[in-house]
Amino acid sequence: MSEQCRVKVVEANAGEHSFWTLAGKNVYQVLEMMGYDVAGSCAGKGNCGKCKVRVQGAVSDMEALEQEYLMSEEIRQGVRLACYSVVKGDITIYLDIMPTGHDAKSRVLKYNPNSTGHSGVDYKYIFIPGRLNDQAVPLYDRIQTALPEYILNLSPGNLNELNKVDRPGRPTLELYAVLFDRREIRLVEREPQGLYGLALDLGTTSLFAALLDLETGAVLAMASQTNMQRIYGEDIISRITYSQTGNEAAESLHTVLINNLNAMIDDMLKESGLSAHRIFKVSAVGNPVMLHFLLGLDVSGFGTTPFTGLFTGGFSTRAADLGLNVSNLAVMQILPQLGGFVGADTTACLLTLGNCLQSTFLLIDIGTNGEIVLGHKGQMWASSAAAGPAFEGGALSSGMRAGSGAIDHFYYQDGKIDFTTIGEGRSRGICGSGIIDLLSVLLATDCISPGGNLTSMSSRYFPVREGSRGQEIVIITAEESLTGTPVVLNQEDIRQVQLAKGAIRTAIDILLRQARLKPADLEHIYMAGAFGSYLDAENLIRIGLLPTIDSSKVKNIGNAAAQGAILALMSTDIINEASKLKNKVAYIELADQADFQDVFLNNLNF
Amino acid sequence: MSEQCRVKVVEANAGEHSFWTLAGKNVYQVLEMMGYDVAGSCAGKGNCGKCKVRVQGAVSDMEALEQEYLMSEEIRQGVRLACYSVVKGDITIYLDIMPTGHDAKSRVLKYNPNSTGHSGVDYKYIFIPGRLNDQAVPLYDRIQTALPEYILNLSPGNLNELNKVDRPGRPTLELYAVLFDRREIRLVEREPQGLYGLALDLGTTSLFAALLDLETGAVLAMASQTNMQRIYGEDIISRITYSQTGNEAAESLHTVLINNLNAMIDDMLKESGLSAHRIFKVSAVGNPVMLHFLLGLDVSGFGTTPFTGLFTGGFSTRAADLGLNVSNLAVMQILPQLGGFVGADTTACLLTLGNCLQSTFLLIDIGTNGEIVLGHKGQMWASSAAAGPAFEGGALSSGMRAGSGAIDHFYYQDGKIDFTTIGEGRSRGICGSGIIDLLSVLLATDCISPGGNLTSMSSRYFPVREGSRGQEIVIITAEESLTGTPVVLNQEDIRQVQLAKGAIRTAIDILLRQARLKPADLEHIYMAGAFGSYLDAENLIRIGLLPTIDSSKVKNIGNAAAQGAILALMSTDIINEASKLKNKVAYIELADQADFQDVFLNNLNF
Repeated sequence: MSEQCRVKVVEANAGEHSFWTLAGKNVYQVLEMMGYDVAGSCAGKGNCGKCKVRVQGAVSDMEALEQEYLMSEEIRQGVRLACYSVVKGDITIYLDIMPTGHDAKSRVLKYNPNSTGHSGVDYKYIFIPGRLNDQAVPLYDRIQTALPEYILNLSPGNLNELNKVDRPGRPTLELYAVLFDRREIRLVEREPQGLYGLALDLGTTSLFAALLDLETGAVLAMASQTNMQRIYGEDIISRITYSQTGNEAAESLHTVLINNLNAMIDDMLKESGLSAHRIFKVSAVGNPVMLHFLLGLDVSGFGTTPFTGLFTGGFSTRAADLGLNVSNLAVMQILPQLGGFVGADTTACLLTLGNCLQSTFLLIDIGTNGEIVLGHKGQMWASSAAAGPAFEGGALSSGMRAGSGAIDHFYYQDGKIDFTTIGEGRSRGICGSGIIDLLSVLLATDCISPGGNLTSMSSRYFPVREGSRGQEIVIITAEESLTGTPVVLNQEDIRQVQLAKGAIRTAIDILLRQARLKPADLEHIYMAGAFGSYLDAENLIRIGLLPTIDSSKVKNIGNAAAQGAILALMSTDIINEASKLKNKVAYIELADQADFQDVFLNNLNF
Repeated sequence: MSEQCRVKVVEANAGEHSFWTLAGKNVYQVLEMMGYDVAGSCAGKGNCGKCKVRVQGAVSDMEALEQEYLMSEEIRQGVRLACYSVVKGDITIYLDIMPTGHDAKSRVLKYNPNSTGHSGVDYKYIFIPGRLNDQAVPLYDRIQTALPEYILNLSPGNLNELNKVDRPGRPTLELYAVLFDRREIRLVEREPQGLYGLALDLGTTSLFAALLDLETGAVLAMASQTNMQRIYGEDIISRITYSQTGNEAAESLHTVLINNLNAMIDDMLKESGLSAHRIFKVSAVGNPVMLHFLLGLDVSGFGTTPFTGLFTGGFSTRAADLGLNVSNLAVMQILPQLGGFVGADTTACLLTLGNCLQSTFLLIDIGTNGEIVLGHKGQMWASSAAAGPAFEGGALSSGMRAGSGAIDHFYYQDGKIDFTTIGEGRSRGICGSGIIDLLSVLLATDCISPGGNLTSMSSRYFPVREGSRGQEIVIITAEESLTGTPVVLNQEDIRQVQLAKGAIRTAIDILLRQARLKPADLEHIYMAGAFGSYLDAENLIRIGLLPTIDSSKVKNIGNAAAQGAILALMSTDIINEASKLKNKVAYIELADQADFQDVFLNNLNF
């Protein structure tokens, strides 16, 4: 069974749109993930009965408890409680019951179409004299005369198309000129056929794309797919290593990515009924290595110190030259990067912060690499910390990515350490948010010492045994696990988490020191990215990944990189702002700091 | 046997270059055609013995008379008299005996490489810090820093290439940036690999191309081929008609032309040992219909009144988009046209006149259409006259194009009308220059009345008979002709020539009137094009194609359109000048002139 299921959401006044999710999530979680404020007062715990939706497709059967919250009429209409309905395959959710806004896709992205500026591609209406029998003025000359202040650069094919409607006897011709960068006309058409743009966010693990109307800023379709480069390695370092095995290997990493993106473009075009040659602009963000793969650039510089690619700024190139299925006229603009492994995705996140850029803030995007930016009065310091794969489920005995069967949440209740699992079945591992929760709970219950050693207290809550990786607590036995392998946490796993959180905390500390600030000075901590969206602020503080501050200052800003890519697509001013931003950000190479090792060793403790 | 033979000319100090000619020409004629001042005092008549060359390949055997001019040592070395050696196939001519200049190709084109300005593509030498182990500045950023005042727009492929030489430990990197239009860097390379450009002159009958070094202006290779569009019609009107039979037909006219040009490019690249991706600029001239075919534009507007294409100005587009085998970076610039059927080839001719543009002059390019420009104190009037195919050998009973077996020259000598024939064999027809000479001689001998009627005098020189096209003089009988068909001139043929010369003379008269000038005011008459190159000025005046002026004012300027295309390739100033030129030229539509018919009827008389 494929883990990914397509969810279609239909709103009364806002059309419909589709999204991918994982089987095992319940509809409440899916809607929350998609940015809806789901009705209800119990936060999805199943005891308020308010999250009513109509669901069709592959969802779990109705439970007795759920039935109690619904009237028989509602049940007949297919109404369900979102928090009880577990996704088992492709489903359609009807939100005619729940109150919704009018632009669902924008809300999902926390993006306001009206807030954007000028996309750099727009229509200019002109009318020109028709072709008169006694007047020998060629079509091109008539168009140029009507547009004296613009550079006219039409293709022969475009001229031939226009010529078909330039019939003798027609007194005037109404035309719509497509204006690029407010100065160059590269297409003229008889009817405005729409101007569309593409925003791309290239993650190591997953790819995101949005199709927008360049005139209105409306989000017309979104697509998200697993980055299929994973066949060459789950993490970026494996892919870099693979790409160095030969020209063909390097080429294939580029090709797989382009195919991946074209499949997403294709999906979105089908959904919106548009054609590829109407996509006139592309903006792209991502980590530096992904951006190099996108352009087909050599990534070997990222394989060894000083970890430098071929460019750190922005980059613009004809999108079709890369193989992207868009108009030949479309330029792809990559946002400026910030240096080292801090890429255009981080720049994009910063762009979404708007006026908050002037506050004192931390922006943290945790993945295999953690990107951290500290801002203070408009000045910024950025760094990346090699967190390793612990938070993404790698390197741990029972680690896994967030998906069906993953324990995503641990909590202490009634003298017991309990947990929740994604999906309805048995557990088979622990994902990132679960690991952080588990460590936090184990610390709170003194099962782990501040130094990271399992104590004798742990046997109160879990069976403890000696394994090859040190002492080991058994969370789920082999018999109860989905896979027949027990779900465990051992001393070595704890060390891995210590290394990961220590790396990020070290980056935070060094940046704070660089700016001569204390944790208490921080007004906001923005957690970006899919992983950041599910983290519990208090647990992050307790394990020491974040410094001790008021947990209400921690805010999940969701997929901010994608939002930033959209803002850059929709506004040439934003691109300029991004270039200026780069100049305000000092990139700090942690390894170059004299006391990096000391700070790091200090931060290994919880 | 193919009529076309390849002639390779090898000079002692100027390398070698190749050219196409027709079998049947003698080497003296070939060298004259190619622009060499061939040694000798008898102008190729075979009685001075000075035009000594060494020839290898398919030439005629040595005649007894020729042998008398040569020493036995010379004969052993392969020395021949150019005027006696008839081309029968591919040959090589060694000019080590004849005095020659150092840039043969430029001389062929009457073009001075040193006179040009800035081609708009040049190298900029930079050096950047190398990749240091402790300094993480990406290559692109280092290049941008070295070129702060330029727009950097490199392809990913180019960056990857440079990355290969950016080895750690190399202290500095010397690079050569290719600068377009003095502001945009679109390629950076380790070693300057040369910047080359292509000049194209697209004629209805034949195509010309030259490959130039954009830095030095040197002509590296030239190619000339028959326009293979002739399979869709010899004349332009047939091709327009054919192209309207469907999209495929229109497409094929474009495709055949591009293939034709690519074959020429290929020849030149082989000859010069260069590769296509080093061609960074293309300039093209031609008549308006050929330019439309080049771009793949609809030509139907030229099929009916008011004979208007889709553009009259210049046009610039990415050359590779048209299918031309050149660099992706190359822009093709079409020179501005002057209106109606007066195309960029005429603009190009004007560009070669330089300061003479300020004089009072006529520029005449005779083909199926005659293009005529009258200049006076910097102001110009242009028109095209539908001369019809008479001067190109069409429409006449025994007309043919200049080629083997064509009578190309008639003259009165010792009470007889004699003639010369291209090639060594029998005659089979009369080409354009022969027709004009013949009419002139017949007029001089009173064989034709001023009204164009054959008189009884004609029987003094030729057998006269009655044919289906009126009275007919037999120049060569069926028995003596190459084809078994007699070579004749009849009353109807004379009418055709009257129509053709009348059309051109009418254009001249109307332009002169427009400018309020008299023929005597003319300081120069420039005859351009291959046809113009072989015309006898006095005969042109006698038949009334040119007004009565001092024949020394008539000057053959050779393939001026090609020269102009080269000037435009080599100088962005010339392109600007061409745009200004267009504004100084008033296009006069002859058919719109109230008294056009009267003037035309008057001009039918000789």
